[in-house]
Amino acid sequence: MSYERPNIEAMQGYVSGEQPEDPGAIKLNTNENPYPPAPEVAKVIAGFSADTLRRYPPPTADEFRAVAATLHGVTRDHLIATRGGDELLRLVITTFVDPGASIGTTDPTYSLYKTLAAVQDCPVVSIPLEPEQWQLPQDFAAQMNAAGVKLTLLVNPHAPTGHLVNQDQLRELATDLEGLLLIDEAYVDFVDPRLNYNATTLIHDLDNVIILRTLSKGYSLAGLRFGYGIAPPNLIAPMLIKTRDSYNLDLLSQKIALAAISNQSYASDTWARVRSERSRMQTSLEGLGFLVGASETNFLLATVSAIHHNQTTAKELYHRLKSSGVFVRYFSDERLRDKLRITIGTPAENNQLLTALGSILGQDLG
Amino acid sequence: MSYERPNIEAMQGYVSGEQPEDPGAIKLNTNENPYPPAPEVAKVIAGFSADTLRRYPPPTADEFRAVAATLHGVTRDHLIATRGGDELLRLVITTFVDPGASIGTTDPTYSLYKTLAAVQDCPVVSIPLEPEQWQLPQDFAAQMNAAGVKLTLLVNPHAPTGHLVNQDQLRELATDLEGLLLIDEAYVDFVDPRLNYNATTLIHDLDNVIILRTLSKGYSLAGLRFGYGIAPPNLIAPMLIKTRDSYNLDLLSQKIALAAISNQSYASDTWARVRSERSRMQTSLEGLGFLVGASETNFLLATVSAIHHNQTTAKELYHRLKSSGVFVRYFSDERLRDKLRITIGTPAENNQLLTALGSILGQDLG
Repeated sequence: MSYERPNIEAMQGYVSGEQPEDPGAIKLNTNENPYPPAPEVAKVIAGFSADTLRRYPPPTADEFRAVAATLHGVTRDHLIATRGGDELLRLVITTFVDPGASIGTTDPTYSLYKTLAAVQDCPVVSIPLEPEQWQLPQDFAAQMNAAGVKLTLLVNPHAPTGHLVNQDQLRELATDLEGLLLIDEAYVDFVDPRLNYNATTLIHDLDNVIILRTLSKGYSLAGLRFGYGIAPPNLIAPMLIKTRDSYNLDLLSQKIALAAISNQSYASDTWARVRSERSRMQTSLEGLGFLVGASETNFLLATVSAIHHNQTTAKELYHRLKSSGVFVRYFSDERLRDKLRITIGTPAENNQLLTALGSILGQDLG
Repeated sequence: MSYERPNIEAMQGYVSGEQPEDPGAIKLNTNENPYPPAPEVAKVIAGFSADTLRRYPPPTADEFRAVAATLHGVTRDHLIATRGGDELLRLVITTFVDPGASIGTTDPTYSLYKTLAAVQDCPVVSIPLEPEQWQLPQDFAAQMNAAGVKLTLLVNPHAPTGHLVNQDQLRELATDLEGLLLIDEAYVDFVDPRLNYNATTLIHDLDNVIILRTLSKGYSLAGLRFGYGIAPPNLIAPMLIKTRDSYNLDLLSQKIALAAISNQSYASDTWARVRSERSRMQTSLEGLGFLVGASETNFLLATVSAIHHNQTTAKELYHRLKSSGVFVRYFSDERLRDKLRITIGTPAENNQLLTALGSILGQDLG
């Protein structure tokens, strides 16, 4: 006899990116920051008293919330600290979307969204992005409203394409949507500052916008599991008070996260380095015959060219790179299966990828 | 306009125990272990490389699971590691109880259960425990089955009374129940070893039993947020693969938890000390005129006696103790409002409580 709910029994779980055991592997497959966290993180850990773990932690991470709120020009009531962006996504669905109601997103999108919707027994409405530039279709909001979507999940800059929707478009979208709009800014720290992108201001004028942030990428803390949400207080409060696990964040991670966001200059230096390498890698990959779209994230989506690559498929390239000790991400989805998603690494790691690609393609073209 | 789901809008959040800011406060209100975690925990933290936080952590904490499984004589497939017991409770409800289906428990019980049920939009069936000894009524399973309960949550030893249901009774209960039985063993480490209590064996013979464990109390790690579930593999698998947040446990907490459970002799020494003080405190509180039930936990439930305490109510005592810098727990529920739940502290802390009580009651009796 199975005790599982029917929707749980029917669903598939989320599949995480590979974590190769070989410490020498070049790991460009899960969008981690190639640089270590701020030196202050190590200091916090070294100075931490184990005995303080005996007691329950501050339940709502108020010290972190206060500092993060200042960083974004909002008050603490606009902010909830969560165990990675994952927990915020789950809380938003749990709090605002009844089972059976629809959740909207784009196609392609971050694959976790469909898993979380399935757990809540919610159908997913996926609207295809425009071909070539991966833009939102003009009637995106109208399609969401027509489908009765209660919550639209938009990763911006977009994964896995790197495309950025600007905040004027976001404002128009949020205004037109009848439901909530969650803007998943997991990769926002890597956006070119010259674009002056800042969607956080939307929460002051619109009652239906939730911004997701994470320390996983921008602050080199994927292993910590720390993120936060920014939204109007009446959207934050029920998640903070009612649906959040009663002590969702341990004491040590609260202190580490605080140290990390308090050192903006260190973090922003890593972002600048990633952008510099992103530019170099785009040029280099295009030189190897790939089509590479503009990216405002810490990864590039590179399309394998049948002409330039002598019929080698993206899947074959992925496997041959893996055999060479270089891990990139391959997706079997229809619109992605001729592409590879390549995380920006250190200059040395990126060079090893280019060398491996040159060697593989050289052989094939030979 | 409110975007909250109707059940979320209607519910109240869980209220955590007070965490006094005064470091000199005698804190006997949230059942923390009075002794620090094992010295190996401090060593793990001191030796931890901050740079390793850059990458995603092992998603299912397999190293911890393997060691915990050995400790309980099961295989890794019988075990899921979770962010405190809270996360396991949520995952069990999410995975096995459809919204609208009933969740069963006792009255009184751990107050978080009702909050978690409300989040899932599940009605709660509460069956009163017998007066005096807080035993389960004979027809407990029959009442649960008649009410169509899909999941029964039983905290054992019981909170807030300290009463232990033995494993023969648990076996009978699980056999009779048509739904799942979760046995919340948050306080099990403090059970007198001479009772030979061991409910973990039930999972080998019964397909509907889930055991909850936490490192918060027994391993002095309430601030860490680490627990686990033990159950037949077909109950563990959907939580592990489908409904768990994709990286629920950060790298550092996985290593700390492993160090803690690997040092059983240190932890069991703290349990023995707590039991010794529990016995002394029961006698001392009875000497002060309280009625104190037998407890197999790290707290005592002490009933204020109208005769001996000159009409001083439990609530008044709670407030006067708090004014003296001693925190205990008071519940306003009908069956608990004449009682105080008192965590067992160090001998020095316990003496301070006794002194404060003597002083307060001496004045009243004066």
